[in-house]
Amino acid sequence: MFELVARDCLGRIGVLHTKHGDINTPVLLPVINPNQMNISPSEMKKLFGTNMVITNAYIIYKNEELREKAQNQGVHGLLNFEGAIMTDSGTFQSHVYGDIEVEPQQIVQFQREIGTDIGTILDIFSEVDDKKEKVKKDVEQTIKRASEAVKIKDEMALACTVQGGVFPELRKYCAEELSKLDCELSPIGGVVPLMENYRYKEVVDIIIAVKKGLLPSRPVHLFGAGHPMFFPMAVLLGCDLFDSASYIKYAKDGRLMFQDGTRKIEEMMELPCSCPICNKNSVKDYLDMHKNGDYREMAMHNLHVSFAEIKRIRQAIFEGRLWEYVEKRSRAHPNLLSALKSLRHHKKYLERFETISKKSAFFYTGPESVHRPIVYRYEKRFFERYQHPRTSVQVGFEEGRRPYSKYYKNEIEKISELVDAHFIVNSIFGPVPIELDEMYPFAQSLIPDELEPETTERMRRLMEKHSHRGLFPFAVMWDGDQTLGLLGEVGRQKSKFDMDTQRVKSVADMQFGKGAGEILLGKNVKLIKSKKTGKIRNVISEGEHVLSMRASDGMFTLKIEGARKLHKDFFPPRLRVVVKDDSVHYNREGMNVFAKFVDECDEELRPMDEVLVVNKNDDLIAIGRALMNREEMLSFKIGVAVKVREGVKEV
Amino acid sequence: MFELVARDCLGRIGVLHTKHGDINTPVLLPVINPNQMNISPSEMKKLFGTNMVITNAYIIYKNEELREKAQNQGVHGLLNFEGAIMTDSGTFQSHVYGDIEVEPQQIVQFQREIGTDIGTILDIFSEVDDKKEKVKKDVEQTIKRASEAVKIKDEMALACTVQGGVFPELRKYCAEELSKLDCELSPIGGVVPLMENYRYKEVVDIIIAVKKGLLPSRPVHLFGAGHPMFFPMAVLLGCDLFDSASYIKYAKDGRLMFQDGTRKIEEMMELPCSCPICNKNSVKDYLDMHKNGDYREMAMHNLHVSFAEIKRIRQAIFEGRLWEYVEKRSRAHPNLLSALKSLRHHKKYLERFETISKKSAFFYTGPESVHRPIVYRYEKRFFERYQHPRTSVQVGFEEGRRPYSKYYKNEIEKISELVDAHFIVNSIFGPVPIELDEMYPFAQSLIPDELEPETTERMRRLMEKHSHRGLFPFAVMWDGDQTLGLLGEVGRQKSKFDMDTQRVKSVADMQFGKGAGEILLGKNVKLIKSKKTGKIRNVISEGEHVLSMRASDGMFTLKIEGARKLHKDFFPPRLRVVVKDDSVHYNREGMNVFAKFVDECDEELRPMDEVLVVNKNDDLIAIGRALMNREEMLSFKIGVAVKVREGVKEV
Repeated sequence: MFELVARDCLGRIGVLHTKHGDINTPVLLPVINPNQMNISPSEMKKLFGTNMVITNAYIIYKNEELREKAQNQGVHGLLNFEGAIMTDSGTFQSHVYGDIEVEPQQIVQFQREIGTDIGTILDIFSEVDDKKEKVKKDVEQTIKRASEAVKIKDEMALACTVQGGVFPELRKYCAEELSKLDCELSPIGGVVPLMENYRYKEVVDIIIAVKKGLLPSRPVHLFGAGHPMFFPMAVLLGCDLFDSASYIKYAKDGRLMFQDGTRKIEEMMELPCSCPICNKNSVKDYLDMHKNGDYREMAMHNLHVSFAEIKRIRQAIFEGRLWEYVEKRSRAHPNLLSALKSLRHHKKYLERFETISKKSAFFYTGPESVHRPIVYRYEKRFFERYQHPRTSVQVGFEEGRRPYSKYYKNEIEKISELVDAHFIVNSIFGPVPIELDEMYPFAQSLIPDELEPETTERMRRLMEKHSHRGLFPFAVMWDGDQTLGLLGEVGRQKSKFDMDTQRVKSVADMQFGKGAGEILLGKNVKLIKSKKTGKIRNVISEGEHVLSMRASDGMFTLKIEGARKLHKDFFPPRLRVVVKDDSVHYNREGMNVFAKFVDECDEELRPMDEVLVVNKNDDLIAIGRALMNREEMLSFKIGVAVKVREGVKEV
Repeated sequence: MFELVARDCLGRIGVLHTKHGDINTPVLLPVINPNQMNISPSEMKKLFGTNMVITNAYIIYKNEELREKAQNQGVHGLLNFEGAIMTDSGTFQSHVYGDIEVEPQQIVQFQREIGTDIGTILDIFSEVDDKKEKVKKDVEQTIKRASEAVKIKDEMALACTVQGGVFPELRKYCAEELSKLDCELSPIGGVVPLMENYRYKEVVDIIIAVKKGLLPSRPVHLFGAGHPMFFPMAVLLGCDLFDSASYIKYAKDGRLMFQDGTRKIEEMMELPCSCPICNKNSVKDYLDMHKNGDYREMAMHNLHVSFAEIKRIRQAIFEGRLWEYVEKRSRAHPNLLSALKSLRHHKKYLERFETISKKSAFFYTGPESVHRPIVYRYEKRFFERYQHPRTSVQVGFEEGRRPYSKYYKNEIEKISELVDAHFIVNSIFGPVPIELDEMYPFAQSLIPDELEPETTERMRRLMEKHSHRGLFPFAVMWDGDQTLGLLGEVGRQKSKFDMDTQRVKSVADMQFGKGAGEILLGKNVKLIKSKKTGKIRNVISEGEHVLSMRASDGMFTLKIEGARKLHKDFFPPRLRVVVKDDSVHYNREGMNVFAKFVDECDEELRPMDEVLVVNKNDDLIAIGRALMNREEMLSFKIGVAVKVREGVKEV
């Protein structure tokens, strides 16, 4: 039912297939009150392009008139809307009123009867103050109800809500159990009281716990999170659907929503908004409407603001700038900033979903930026994969302009005349060997002049960790002519360090794994450079074209001959995506690998990594680029897992 | 010509009076190309409420047809616009083309002839690479041309542009010299090459240097800064007018402007914008327009985005949240972040313009937040003004929830049973005595759970500075029961510390100056508290109502009897605003003090400070609240300097 289109970390642009059309996610579903449709769904369709709404099946069920109409004309007839409709079950009402008058199976059946596209089980809403024992019981009950609901859902897609209160382990457990059931959606329930009290950090912990337990292919709805303030972070962590009743609740209350908060009309001297509604109204107009109990236009403003935020997030994912976007948006409230800071505790998990390279540059927005998973990945890979050339000394440089090898060209030349040296930069990413300087994200990053002590301390710690390995007989930080004098004493020996060859070797090691450089280069290497930029374009090893270097991110595209070398010397599962027999023929012809045909996958592979597509006998059948990591490939039923660049014909 | 309406630091909402109407500032003037009015000024008026535009007098002058039309119908006829029109002089053309064909006096005269509302001198545009010697000569030439232009400006308002290249001292000098001339506006020129290269930090240094040299009443136009990315910071530092040619230049180039940057249409998958133009178009629509050379709608989008940013800034000033807004916006580009970080070097100057209290809470957005001038002011006042009660010990508490005295209630009670103690919080603002905890910004602040080492290090340093003064025989940080044990050994002596009295005394000292508390409290004090909140509302000293405490910011409003006490014991110029004779009668009647009637002012007074209005003989004639600081009062010709609360009748 759910297809991955583009991604940035756990954030994703997807398509949700429903009986009433395809829905692009992330998506915001306006909540429709069937009793009072101030802005009707069809108007929303016209005004905002809304293709999906959510309404409450319990409210319909409880009201005789609505119920009959829904039973006769279906919920689409009742709302007069031909788009997709999701219904909620009454769980939130049970939270508000303590109890409700419907049986769990009854309300699922009712939703099915009225032709809902996505119905929801009647799960148990644990309160934030509930003790763990109580919540555990609630979770078991929710799982039981879900498994019963699945049996009667029939054609209707079913949302089985993850509960578990404020206990991440219960959230994860609930998600794991619900993953075993044949349902289409897994909302996260019970977070409204946390959201209302700005307890964003706890919501973050809950979302991550749920994601860890849930199949990655399962779309996630964050129930009741209707304020655009939290959308960016929720999407970054893998939430795909939101619903908003806030647009109308706030409007009734005379409050306008904005990207970074909410304001009462009487607190405004300006309408700091460019939406069509604010364009034709003044503060006074809104005040008059509010006085007259007319909140329709304010609700429309609120929807404009909310939908625009979803669009900004989608654009940010598309650009690979979602982390940066979330960091910016997290300044809207100190508790959001707390939540942002807490993400560093989850970087190990988040790194698995982070793409290898991105379209856009890495913009540093504050000390939180060096805790992005992509920075953690570099730290990890540098210490695991990088192999230093054997030179007599290593000279460290301080952070500088990009690319480092150009910025420190003169110094490198002077030192190399004097002594056999290698060079490393004390970068915000950690120690960066000079020859990696064109690889994403090093060349493609922008940092402020002044760095926070938190960041410089991390840099210092990583440089220390590096130097403690004692890989060089002599290591020194560059400090001008004084260093030259010092190096002179070490012993005159012109450098053997060859930047070009080392660049190929090091990038290959970092990208494909330790030893990949040696394997790919072989004994006889020829580098073909761009005449225009002087940069390496192609790597020819023993007469065969093994690698191409991308100008955009300084990383390699694997050629068939290069893939053969890696395939020969790297044993399974390294770099492999194993496909099922049905798929082999098509991939050999150069067609993409679909997720449902993936049998296994190297768990070290990350989205956008170059991969070897093999059959069950480990014969190389194609090369391409992964669009998913292992758990995603094994979970998704539709969509492309590997974008194949070239197939290998059978011999 | 320029009136101050509301303010936040150097940022201000103002009114610029022109022959063609009043203009609310900050304002963005769309640049109109008289040769090609793609969106005409009257359309802009209709669509965006534009009341003022800018066009180029040199282009009109050079084109025979335009020149004749302008000479016959005036520039308002030429542009068919009845709003205010500013004209530029050809200086920018001299920067682009190296030379222009008009004499300095000629172009000023021409602008006057065609009825420009604000004309501009032909100043010398120094290039960013020009040597200081050369720039110095340019500045002298600019000053000379300005002083000559002033003689012939007649009824036309004149903009004398501040130059000085990248040299702050020359910028300041130029501003000082231009302040001596009778002109209406002082634009900052020559920053376009810096803006184009994202050299925001240097632009910040230039703006501040100019502001230091310039009369505060002189409106400042930041010439050529047309991208909304930099508007917030420029306004914070006191820029009032902007012009934008970017809206059309970018549109021609197929680029859409956004709050945080610019994007090419072909890089977009969404239109992350809620403006009316984006509402009716898709990415494909824009692409087609671009292909057909039709850039009108993209230009309109760019204007929507630019005007919305100005409105957001105005709302932020109104709310007293401009610093927070600038901090948020500065994450749009690492160089903007650099510029933000550099503001800490100017806090001493900026503090003079910072209001005493604000409408909105202090939201911490990152380590830059503790370098806001208001935090610097607290540090300064705490060490200069605060007087510790004489208790035997002082106990420090770590940061906690607000208000501190409530959060640490139990601890305070336990300790006070045991020993004569005073309490101080290791707050993000520095050491905060417990009794100040309801005063702005302490109670009205929100911070994240986790603070950056940069911030905690500053806190540590200030606590250390405090404790090094050795004011207490015994000082300790609270560490639970262990501390209690330790305090027990110091000696049992139930605390004499009286929170209420101390609160009145300490707030008064901090607000009015060292010793104010003693003076105002006298020997016989009665505190009247709110029955609802239990908070102090009124202070009665020796039977007279001397102070009222505001619930909103925990600060005092001065009553006449309190003012008399301070007036008696604080010698001039402390707390005084001295008014000219013409004004005395009116102020005694309770009318506001207008800036033009201010003769002198205590230079320690800040906007929103309580003041004593006196005549030249230092007789108390009124009390009220300052809306300006000293240099502003002495510079502004129109507008209110002191909002008088009560006049003192002559006896």
